[in-house]
Amino acid sequence: MGKQLKTLQNVAKQLPEQVAIQIKDLVKNNQWEAGYKLPNEFEMAEMLGVGRGTVREAIKILVAQNVVEIHRGSGTFVCEKPGVSDDPFGLSFILDQQKLALDMCEIRMIIEPQIAELAAQRVTKENIQNLREICKQLKTKVENNEDYTNEDRNFHETIARCTNNQVIEQLVPLIHKSITLFMDVTKTQLKQQTVDDHYMLVEAIENHDGLKAKEIMMAHIQHNQTNIKNKQLRKEK
Amino acid sequence: MGKQLKTLQNVAKQLPEQVAIQIKDLVKNNQWEAGYKLPNEFEMAEMLGVGRGTVREAIKILVAQNVVEIHRGSGTFVCEKPGVSDDPFGLSFILDQQKLALDMCEIRMIIEPQIAELAAQRVTKENIQNLREICKQLKTKVENNEDYTNEDRNFHETIARCTNNQVIEQLVPLIHKSITLFMDVTKTQLKQQTVDDHYMLVEAIENHDGLKAKEIMMAHIQHNQTNIKNKQLRKEK
Repeated sequence: MGKQLKTLQNVAKQLPEQVAIQIKDLVKNNQWEAGYKLPNEFEMAEMLGVGRGTVREAIKILVAQNVVEIHRGSGTFVCEKPGVSDDPFGLSFILDQQKLALDMCEIRMIIEPQIAELAAQRVTKENIQNLREICKQLKTKVENNEDYTNEDRNFHETIARCTNNQVIEQLVPLIHKSITLFMDVTKTQLKQQTVDDHYMLVEAIENHDGLKAKEIMMAHIQHNQTNIKNKQLRKEK
Repeated sequence: MGKQLKTLQNVAKQLPEQVAIQIKDLVKNNQWEAGYKLPNEFEMAEMLGVGRGTVREAIKILVAQNVVEIHRGSGTFVCEKPGVSDDPFGLSFILDQQKLALDMCEIRMIIEPQIAELAAQRVTKENIQNLREICKQLKTKVENNEDYTNEDRNFHETIARCTNNQVIEQLVPLIHKSITLFMDVTKTQLKQQTVDDHYMLVEAIENHDGLKAKEIMMAHIQHNQTNIKNKQLRKEK
């Protein structure tokens, strides 16, 4: 039986993958946005001319690829950022997490100062309002001695959105997500510095002063980098 | 029957996902490298204390996430770059592909000149030998009027590897893969320019002249950008 089963599996295996691609095309071409509820299994099977079992297998593939998510009892929905992986760089497979932390700082240092410069060139009034709001939220968290990781990420992601570049808008959240996923970067000593840096950055961006925005962002990331290096040194001792 | 089936599915659904995570940990912790053959379904089921059906479902999830691949008749193997997605930025879901092409150029312009600078600081003799070899291969392809996309990608990925930064090493191939996946960037007019730029770059990197490497890379990407913009203008006419 083992052998027969294997053969059957081999024949059946590729169809769900093909159907998964077809469903991705449906999401894209119909502009089904984040939160859109997909037709049910029965309707999908009819639309695509395949069996319900195949649709079910294809949906499993799309769940694994973060394209759709299943809410039990209510249906299958398009993900917040369809197709964007949780760990797109495969960083969880890299063993030396200490080096990874410094490599991450280095890539931030390469990308984010220039993003701040672009943001200063392209920022809208609405962006500025958002940035000011996030600055306030972070300040409150710091004053109340609460964790401000989310506000910090939100701030940097909003600057990325000011560039109006879709690749940058996807890339920056991925880098920040990776940092919080894989590293312990609680910045106890940097609280007031972070608040000040953020306010100065927003001012430079609001004044369309690209070079100043770039410089402040560089110094800001440098502070983080030094902090991580010091921590690693303390651990090694 | 429909309802009962649904309930059963709901109960069974999360176990394969948990087992998929356990298998990822096995890959990581045992340092199973690219091409490593996983234990068979029966052995995996024993190791993890679950049924073979669950192992099979978990493997399907890992195939969808590019962690392992199934070679029919010979087994399940760790992927070349485990966990690295084909389209990690979800770019296939972005509709305006023309803007996407220019956004891609912009991110290359932000990242790659600085990567060339870092490469010049950290390059090894072995890196230089590789780069020279790839330059020759590309030159031959150009002389024979053949497609040189792979050699071009290989060149830029090798420069990324010179930085000895694991995040950069993952990121640059992703960007280049995205470019060739989603854009038609045949560079008919740029052939000789590409060959010349590459040779000049290798020389600057070999001389550890970071600033020069950065400048040449900037000009090199600018050539590509202008080419894409001209193409788009021609299309619009």
